Amino acid sequence: MRIQTFSSSSLQSSFPLNQIASMNGSRSRSRPEYIPGHIPDPSYVRILDTTLRDGEQAPGAAMTAEQKLRIARQLVKLGVDVIEAGFPCASQEDFNGVKMIAQEVGRKCEDDGYVPVIVAMCRCNEKDIRTAWEAVKEAKRPRLLPFIATSPIHMEYKLRKTKEEVLQIARTMVAFARSLGCRDIEFGAEDAARSDREFLYQIFGDVIEAGATTVVVADTVGITMPFEFGKLIADIKANTPGIEKAIIAVHCHNDLGHATANTIEATRAGARQLEVTVNGIGERAGNAALEEVVMALRCRGDHVLGGLYTGINTKHILKTSKMVEECSGMHLQPHKAIVGHNAFLHESGIHQDGLLKHRGTYEILSPEDIGYERSNEATMVLGKLSGRHALKTRLKELGYELKEDEVESVFQNFKAMAEKKKRVTDVDLKALVSDQVCDVEPIWKLCGLEVTCGTMNFSSTTIELVTINGTTHVACSVGKGPVDSAFKAVDLIVKEAVKVLEYSLNTITEGTDAIATVHVVIHKENAHSYNSTGNIVYPTFSGIGKGVDVVVSSVEAYLTALNKMLDFKE
Amino acid sequence: MRIQTFSSSSLQSSFPLNQIASMNGSRSRSRPEYIPGHIPDPSYVRILDTTLRDGEQAPGAAMTAEQKLRIARQLVKLGVDVIEAGFPCASQEDFNGVKMIAQEVGRKCEDDGYVPVIVAMCRCNEKDIRTAWEAVKEAKRPRLLPFIATSPIHMEYKLRKTKEEVLQIARTMVAFARSLGCRDIEFGAEDAARSDREFLYQIFGDVIEAGATTVVVADTVGITMPFEFGKLIADIKANTPGIEKAIIAVHCHNDLGHATANTIEATRAGARQLEVTVNGIGERAGNAALEEVVMALRCRGDHVLGGLYTGINTKHILKTSKMVEECSGMHLQPHKAIVGHNAFLHESGIHQDGLLKHRGTYEILSPEDIGYERSNEATMVLGKLSGRHALKTRLKELGYELKEDEVESVFQNFKAMAEKKKRVTDVDLKALVSDQVCDVEPIWKLCGLEVTCGTMNFSSTTIELVTINGTTHVACSVGKGPVDSAFKAVDLIVKEAVKVLEYSLNTITEGTDAIATVHVVIHKENAHSYNSTGNIVYPTFSGIGKGVDVVVSSVEAYLTALNKMLDFKE
Repeated sequence: MRIQTFSSSSLQSSFPLNQIASMNGSRSRSRPEYIPGHIPDPSYVRILDTTLRDGEQAPGAAMTAEQKLRIARQLVKLGVDVIEAGFPCASQEDFNGVKMIAQEVGRKCEDDGYVPVIVAMCRCNEKDIRTAWEAVKEAKRPRLLPFIATSPIHMEYKLRKTKEEVLQIARTMVAFARSLGCRDIEFGAEDAARSDREFLYQIFGDVIEAGATTVVVADTVGITMPFEFGKLIADIKANTPGIEKAIIAVHCHNDLGHATANTIEATRAGARQLEVTVNGIGERAGNAALEEVVMALRCRGDHVLGGLYTGINTKHILKTSKMVEECSGMHLQPHKAIVGHNAFLHESGIHQDGLLKHRGTYEILSPEDIGYERSNEATMVLGKLSGRHALKTRLKELGYELKEDEVESVFQNFKAMAEKKKRVTDVDLKALVSDQVCDVEPIWKLCGLEVTCGTMNFSSTTIELVTINGTTHVACSVGKGPVDSAFKAVDLIVKEAVKVLEYSLNTITEGTDAIATVHVVIHKENAHSYNSTGNIVYPTFSGIGKGVDVVVSSVEAYLTALNKMLDFKE
Repeated sequence: MRIQTFSSSSLQSSFPLNQIASMNGSRSRSRPEYIPGHIPDPSYVRILDTTLRDGEQAPGAAMTAEQKLRIARQLVKLGVDVIEAGFPCASQEDFNGVKMIAQEVGRKCEDDGYVPVIVAMCRCNEKDIRTAWEAVKEAKRPRLLPFIATSPIHMEYKLRKTKEEVLQIARTMVAFARSLGCRDIEFGAEDAARSDREFLYQIFGDVIEAGATTVVVADTVGITMPFEFGKLIADIKANTPGIEKAIIAVHCHNDLGHATANTIEATRAGARQLEVTVNGIGERAGNAALEEVVMALRCRGDHVLGGLYTGINTKHILKTSKMVEECSGMHLQPHKAIVGHNAFLHESGIHQDGLLKHRGTYEILSPEDIGYERSNEATMVLGKLSGRHALKTRLKELGYELKEDEVESVFQNFKAMAEKKKRVTDVDLKALVSDQVCDVEPIWKLCGLEVTCGTMNFSSTTIELVTINGTTHVACSVGKGPVDSAFKAVDLIVKEAVKVLEYSLNTITEGTDAIATVHVVIHKENAHSYNSTGNIVYPTFSGIGKGVDVVVSSVEAYLTALNKMLDFKE
């Protein structure tokens, strides 16, 4: 195993930043018993996930109660300590969503006694608090999160209240929440980062006295830098009366790109509950991302953060990320840290060469840690910056044992292709290798096509294909739509059992006579083999078609993929 | 102007984190004279943009020489101090790209004497350095960037060299670069963050003695936390012999989400050149994002960073971001800080209410600062979390002056719609208001459709539509493809001059009989009005169609949009 080889190497002592030991270290620790205002192990950091509340506030990210329940179930697998399930006062649907989560997810204890705290946000008024309590009270560990703004600009312009009024409201409402029977109360100071320090000490001291078990320092507008946010947390810890009876939580926004760093820095100053969202979604530029915060703690916790650790099962990160992406519709950029498509990909020649010699040269986390099944395929991409070393390795993986001069010749053609095409796929590589031997001609070519479709609920296609030796074949088929009928007509001629794995068509342009690009991926039915881990793998083949007629483009893409498949020899 | 109102308010002194003054402050300062190893103003921070080199290393982000030249021209408008134009040894195309940039962009002086430094990266060998120098030497301010790895793991496994060998190579190669006539040399210590400190002091000291004018501390694998990275920079500044003759640069990667914070923290410890990419693109999780670093310095430079400032014209950030997104194909997530689609959007009711009372409640940057033309439309989205205040404001902007009970009634229907639909658009709102009066029925409905298409290079459609009062109309048209002919047939019946602004079709699924979703946006030709800033605005209308037949779905989407347009009264 790579990690151990690395740890036991003679180099270890000279790495000031060796992250590997911490990753092994944190695995063995268990989650301490849950007590609202106290964590028995001072190194344990609670993770509060607010994807379902603050994440959902992202424009366009609204989710149904059913979707939220699905995500909440996944958050349990991930092992978050606290699920902020929603804002029950926002609408009836929100109320129902929180209640469903409290009743199901909040009541199912794991074997080790773990059950997430379910928390509902509420403004500091009796109606909100009562509604929120109705929504969460059936959970095994229910919590309320009354909040109020504490910064001068928010108090003056938004609340139109004085400091004294805000103090009075906070105290009274925390006491009111307690009077309903709630024993776990998290008090949120909105815009705390722009608030007067003395006022924060006072209001936190007062609410702790009134029964708050956690106090949240929110950087609502995402304005602070790590060193000042860390100082703020340290000051609060040093100056707030009774702070030892409560947990300090932080809630950071990413407007200046600092949410993750501020959250981590806060742990150094004593924060022990981190409020995050999956994929970092949230209002505006979003919140601190769960996956970044958790992996930073895992990777550096033992080495530079005094042994801090979380209870997160990181192997569920990838799956949770994909689920949230799908439910929220918030698509991630390829370079999103940890969970983006490119996060573990390497393209440049220098990096690929280094990785092939030792993964640790350019990798500080292993893709398996967040739930990937590792393969070089998932972590290296051949493009114009790739060098001979990477090309040769990939050709070997594809089963080609070439001589040095053959590799050199493929490499030259590969470089020429890579100048024109962003990614050179395995299929392209195969084609490049074949080109060294002979020019492969397509077995089937499109001669003519006529499609009829419309509102009859079925479509028909007549197609003429010509083979490599000049014979023409004609067939006709019906289908559910024009693309379906056209592919079926092709199948009647080609007579191969093919499975279409992906059919995608994208065009976003002005006007209706624009070029549509169709991408088809197929594999041959039953033509599988097994990889090194014993999983079934199918060789897949793709084709691209472009043109103003979407049906013709689709057939061309399909034929390209089919020709590659037919040309492929195991 | 909002900013001044805010600055002059009586609250100013009580804001520990008032960012506004710094924004005015930095505007008035000018860029100090360029001297390779020295910056006359100790508060000035140079920005090196490496979008064209490290950014392009992002898998799939390869750009043509022409695209790179276009981006380089835009980087000049943005005012970056140094453009890292590429890695000339990677390929002939890369060499040409760097040379074109050096010859054009690197030679055009602005009136104030500003011309960007053009830098080419090279490995520490004579061939690389010679090639790189050939590529950049015609620039007015050419610079070479020889680099070598300095961490134990890189030296042992990738370079297979000892410390002494690496030291020797670095010294010799910097001297060699100087011998070619290059007077501005930036030496890069790859993986410096995992390197031995004493070794860094030594190698930096040696290369400065050999003629290096900038030394780069790279966190190549993105592993450090801000406090330790800051300490590293401070230690290098304190212990490297001759460091006062060179600029300390930092180059941070985002693997743990800390690139921006590490870069900013380094400035506090003395770094005065920040290496960044537009949109934060780059290998794996990318680099520190130019827009985040620059706006953090702008927003907090005067207040908590001792007066640091850059020469960036932030009004060009948005345009540069869009250009890089387009050329690299690296699409941004909506919650990308500063330049993401949502970065200035507010959806929750509490936030919208606050903003309407005072923008400063939830906004620390103004969208205009990065090049937006502000409007409420660009910054507020109505969704299920929006409150009465935001709804009423938007209705007013749309021209509806409703009574309180009418607003309440629209609000109830709005909430019901928002539970089902993520974003409630202006068209939806208009429909909601109309619903208070009467149920609007579609004017045109699809009765039947027959389309023929194929390889004839044209398509024909026969269509039957029925009006609201039951009359049927039939028409037939040819077009370039099935969708084009179908829309033209609709136009023959409806007889409206319509412009299709957007036609998009997306389906990514297994199989070919999946549901395709078509989205059409149109506006009526010549039906424009003017907005408050004097720009022409067209009311636009959208429609969505779904089904297995892409042509039928397209027509349904088009008819929905047309019916909305016909129903719209100015």
